Amino acid sequence: MTEIPEKTEGGTSRRALIAWGGAGLALGAAAAGGAVAMTRGSEDVQTVAAEAGGAIAFHGANQAGIATPVQDRLHFAAFDLATDDRAEFVQMLKDWTAAARRMTAGQAVGEGAYGGLAEAPPDDTGEALGLKPSRLTLTIGFGPGLFEKLGMADRRPDALVDLPQFSGDNLDRNRSGGDVCVQACSDDPQVAVHAVRNLARIGFGKVSVRWSQLGFGKTSSTTPEAQTPRNLLGFKDGTRNIAGTETARLKKFVWVDGTDLDDNSAWMEGGSYLVARRIRMHIEPWDRTSLQEQEDIFGRDKGEGAPVGKAKERDEPFLKAMLPDAHVRLAHPDSNHGATLLRRGYSFTDGTDGLGRLEAGLFFLAYQRDVRKGFIPVQRNLATDALNEYIQHVGSAVFAVPPGVRDKDDWWGRALFSEPSQSSEPSKSSQSSEPSKSSQSSQSSKGA
Amino acid sequence: MTEIPEKTEGGTSRRALIAWGGAGLALGAAAAGGAVAMTRGSEDVQTVAAEAGGAIAFHGANQAGIATPVQDRLHFAAFDLATDDRAEFVQMLKDWTAAARRMTAGQAVGEGAYGGLAEAPPDDTGEALGLKPSRLTLTIGFGPGLFEKLGMADRRPDALVDLPQFSGDNLDRNRSGGDVCVQACSDDPQVAVHAVRNLARIGFGKVSVRWSQLGFGKTSSTTPEAQTPRNLLGFKDGTRNIAGTETARLKKFVWVDGTDLDDNSAWMEGGSYLVARRIRMHIEPWDRTSLQEQEDIFGRDKGEGAPVGKAKERDEPFLKAMLPDAHVRLAHPDSNHGATLLRRGYSFTDGTDGLGRLEAGLFFLAYQRDVRKGFIPVQRNLATDALNEYIQHVGSAVFAVPPGVRDKDDWWGRALFSEPSQSSEPSKSSQSSEPSKSSQSSQSSKGA
Repeated sequence: MTEIPEKTEGGTSRRALIAWGGAGLALGAAAAGGAVAMTRGSEDVQTVAAEAGGAIAFHGANQAGIATPVQDRLHFAAFDLATDDRAEFVQMLKDWTAAARRMTAGQAVGEGAYGGLAEAPPDDTGEALGLKPSRLTLTIGFGPGLFEKLGMADRRPDALVDLPQFSGDNLDRNRSGGDVCVQACSDDPQVAVHAVRNLARIGFGKVSVRWSQLGFGKTSSTTPEAQTPRNLLGFKDGTRNIAGTETARLKKFVWVDGTDLDDNSAWMEGGSYLVARRIRMHIEPWDRTSLQEQEDIFGRDKGEGAPVGKAKERDEPFLKAMLPDAHVRLAHPDSNHGATLLRRGYSFTDGTDGLGRLEAGLFFLAYQRDVRKGFIPVQRNLATDALNEYIQHVGSAVFAVPPGVRDKDDWWGRALFSEPSQSSEPSKSSQSSEPSKSSQSSQSSKGA
Repeated sequence: MTEIPEKTEGGTSRRALIAWGGAGLALGAAAAGGAVAMTRGSEDVQTVAAEAGGAIAFHGANQAGIATPVQDRLHFAAFDLATDDRAEFVQMLKDWTAAARRMTAGQAVGEGAYGGLAEAPPDDTGEALGLKPSRLTLTIGFGPGLFEKLGMADRRPDALVDLPQFSGDNLDRNRSGGDVCVQACSDDPQVAVHAVRNLARIGFGKVSVRWSQLGFGKTSSTTPEAQTPRNLLGFKDGTRNIAGTETARLKKFVWVDGTDLDDNSAWMEGGSYLVARRIRMHIEPWDRTSLQEQEDIFGRDKGEGAPVGKAKERDEPFLKAMLPDAHVRLAHPDSNHGATLLRRGYSFTDGTDGLGRLEAGLFFLAYQRDVRKGFIPVQRNLATDALNEYIQHVGSAVFAVPPGVRDKDDWWGRALFSEPSQSSEPSKSSQSSEPSKSSQSSQSSKGA
């Protein structure tokens, strides 16, 4: 890390705020996923090969953090609404957007941090000062409860269903649900934690954290040439994930487009739906299982990750060579009428449970165009999965992930709130307000 | 990551085990702290500038992971003894040493992983296969309870005291104590978690995990030229830490030497004492505190980290310029008769507590030559620390950290167990066995 020039203020020297130029913010759509590094202390921007320290463009037609090459670390937070005042919540979304725009560019929240008023709390909590942007992405989603609580039940998309109870579910209410979510991904965990914490701080009084999850090791790749990472069972899984560069598959399986839209979901064009599941792994019994049984259960070999009878990890699996309850066989699109998910899951370890067992597993994150055609049929099909003896779903949530923030005047969720936000009164049965598909542009002046 | 050549076995292709040459294991003392990278698939060893992917030498007079430049991530585990059979425990220590020797070199546990018997559980759990050594260090310690449980109370060092109750302590029994500890540090969390998990697996029936802690961001540096990392309060702390290159200060404050030894601690020469404290930070009230108050509490400015009235982070503080209860003033060696600790603490975030607050703080790790002259007086002096309004110690443990493993025939704790291990019967009052300082070499043949 380079030393930053200093300035002296009131007898105390402070290190000047590390300011990456804001000029790079409109660099290409987030979906392109290219990492850019910005030079310090100037407005010059250099696009370089993807590297851990760089910044991911915040603006784009889709939110970053979905098709973006998967970063190493995760901090995910689900919030409950603490207000039913729509205008207040909209103001928070604008404040969040402004903060996210700065943090993803490697800047501190607020213009005046540590040069501001000594009598006021700092605009930024400070622990990421001096750290690189580290490919931070911040991705926001709206849970089913938000629409009712803000009097907008008529704008809840049909595709945002409440997930059914699945076979084997053992859900902890305190690790499930939420009205709003923020997915922070970065190659530096301190950068991800800092971002969620500062959004929580900005949201004080409007939202409160319901649950959160740290993920330390990515278990999926959205970069086709990269090795598939291993989960905590030691296996590669999700080998044929959708890559960030596969425009056609992204369009087919991930992004909501005009053909999906109806009156209550017009605001979702360019968005996606997120299913988050905390999957506890029973590590200790698994570790005492024979190699043969482990490989039978997955339908892959452990070393290379090749499907049964095949030589290489990415060889097309021959499903009938596997046992009928093998994980790969049951999860494969061919067993699910083509259903395909974009996965961005992370391994987690939250210490030890009261019985000395590792509290560890997979925090599963999957994006899809319609939950009813994505996660739900696949998860139903996994009811007979042999792996179920060693895993258990203990947390669950579903969110509508709105489209990207297009420019500096735009803000998270604007299409959703463009008309209803005229009124701050929740109106539980406001069936009259026809959402306009062109509502985004009509609100430009409010987003500044 | 490079693709590894493949071999075909029984019709199934497996990726060959990634084998870094074992030849590099004797490369210099761990205290030198240099990272070495080994070439794959050969016995050639190249010493390169410290880099994230390299391996740290396992063998040395002192254990690695103390003076070693601090890695980015931590997995720390405290174990309870599940046996009182000394011979069984000694065998586990030998097995642990062999596994640690391989894992720190970037190898899988066991020679035959994934080429071994399909009918047996794999020797290695597999999730680090294909990952680099990532500067993994494994550091073991023995807690006070071990000596009594194994009938070796006469070999418990006087310096391994039970910590007193400190002002403000609010200790959770389930996050405190332990008979054995393993500190795994690495630049890749998956590598650290893998290492602890495999040791726990090998120790099944002999030890069980009592508690564990994941740390995601280092808060101390033992590299003098590096920037001091920031803790979750946004401040630099521990600026004047002991560097891994400061041989004189290490000798004075960290390593147990001949002048410290008596009958019951002769086995500790080259060792150290570790105090681990889980310190919860009250993040939300802190974030609503004014910049001035935050800076007054620490006795530093937030941006640069300079002591009150000074310009630069590493300027010598003028303690009397600070408020009497400023953290830097009370923790400074000049306020503690020179007491100095080597700190290797990490930030942690374990999600959210039941009240929606970030369950976050500092997992404090400090090494010292004698706890009675190190942590205890400093912590007593911090009773009036202004910071105490925003932090609380909720976990505590102390361990005697034995000297390093010297070569391939040596094993963790051999000096301690060299004579008593002749008998597998716990003998609660075995005052007769005079520990021999030359006992290490007499056991060489058993360690192989």
